[in-house]
Amino acid sequence: MADTHALATLVQALKGLPGVGIKSAQRMAFQLLQNDRATARQLAAALQNAVEKIQHCECCHTFTEAELCDTCLDLTRDRTLLCVIETPADQSAIERTGTYRGLYFVLMGKLSPLDGIGPHDIGLAKLKKRVADGVLTEVILATNFTAEGEATAHVISEMIRQQGLKVTRLARGVPAGSELEYVDLGTIAHALVDRR
Amino acid sequence: MADTHALATLVQALKGLPGVGIKSAQRMAFQLLQNDRATARQLAAALQNAVEKIQHCECCHTFTEAELCDTCLDLTRDRTLLCVIETPADQSAIERTGTYRGLYFVLMGKLSPLDGIGPHDIGLAKLKKRVADGVLTEVILATNFTAEGEATAHVISEMIRQQGLKVTRLARGVPAGSELEYVDLGTIAHALVDRR
Repeated sequence: MADTHALATLVQALKGLPGVGIKSAQRMAFQLLQNDRATARQLAAALQNAVEKIQHCECCHTFTEAELCDTCLDLTRDRTLLCVIETPADQSAIERTGTYRGLYFVLMGKLSPLDGIGPHDIGLAKLKKRVADGVLTEVILATNFTAEGEATAHVISEMIRQQGLKVTRLARGVPAGSELEYVDLGTIAHALVDRR
Repeated sequence: MADTHALATLVQALKGLPGVGIKSAQRMAFQLLQNDRATARQLAAALQNAVEKIQHCECCHTFTEAELCDTCLDLTRDRTLLCVIETPADQSAIERTGTYRGLYFVLMGKLSPLDGIGPHDIGLAKLKKRVADGVLTEVILATNFTAEGEATAHVISEMIRQQGLKVTRLARGVPAGSELEYVDLGTIAHALVDRR
């Protein structure tokens, strides 16, 4: 791109975003500076504000600006159920189904030894303390059905079973609206084993 | 995502970047807040700094922090040649070929009536003044070979021919290293007409 230091720094910083390479970063910088300085200012302010204000919920570990998040403060929810998910986006997907009224625990990641992410990084100690509140009766493991998600679910279920709680996992099976011909074999095998 | 205002604002602001949809914006916000607050702070500072410092070169219209950019200040360059391009990225592509020693004029866009981008938005008045410096002898049009780029080149060539300067366009033809079988017919037709 051009020869200015401020521009090079901006391109480098944009390249730090996940999924953004050097070409995209250049295009973003060009677009922001040429046509959209208001957006650039807004983004700068939003970043600064978010970094300053957003912390983790004391209870469920998700992002929040207060000590406790709105879900944990909601007294109408079922306090005997706890659903463990990887990210706030997963929580929002479950909420949108409208079929779950319990509480959540957001790991904010998954075990991934290859990336150096161990039990400490995903707040398992906090989860252990959380499940020992005496009100909970069931923990639903809703980590992703990937290798890391499955490993994370396994480690958590071992930990929680020791505390004498019921541990369940989201059902695996054929997705709604799909044709068997196009579903992968592993999924069909699981659906056969878990038939009811 | 979660229920914080600061987070929602950040996701919205990230969605303002070109090529970033809601899912990517959520993933970016999550990644920045969970694992990479230093990057978030750097990006905020880089944006602020760029918006404050970067302006347009008085001579060639590209991004610069000073009044004139380094290329325009370079006294070793051939001041009789002016290459007109759409973006600083195009300039950098031509510079990397190492075959051009003249000066540039960066339109910072292209004529695109459908998007409401007219002659005024791409600095044609500034270009008209620029080509009237009495030193220039040839203007090379190196806008992209897209519909908008061709239209832009046409409008500029009409404008400059009136001022009695030589106007040329980048040659169209078969790209280096390509096999004819796989080159599109329009390109082969142009290469035949422009054979030498």
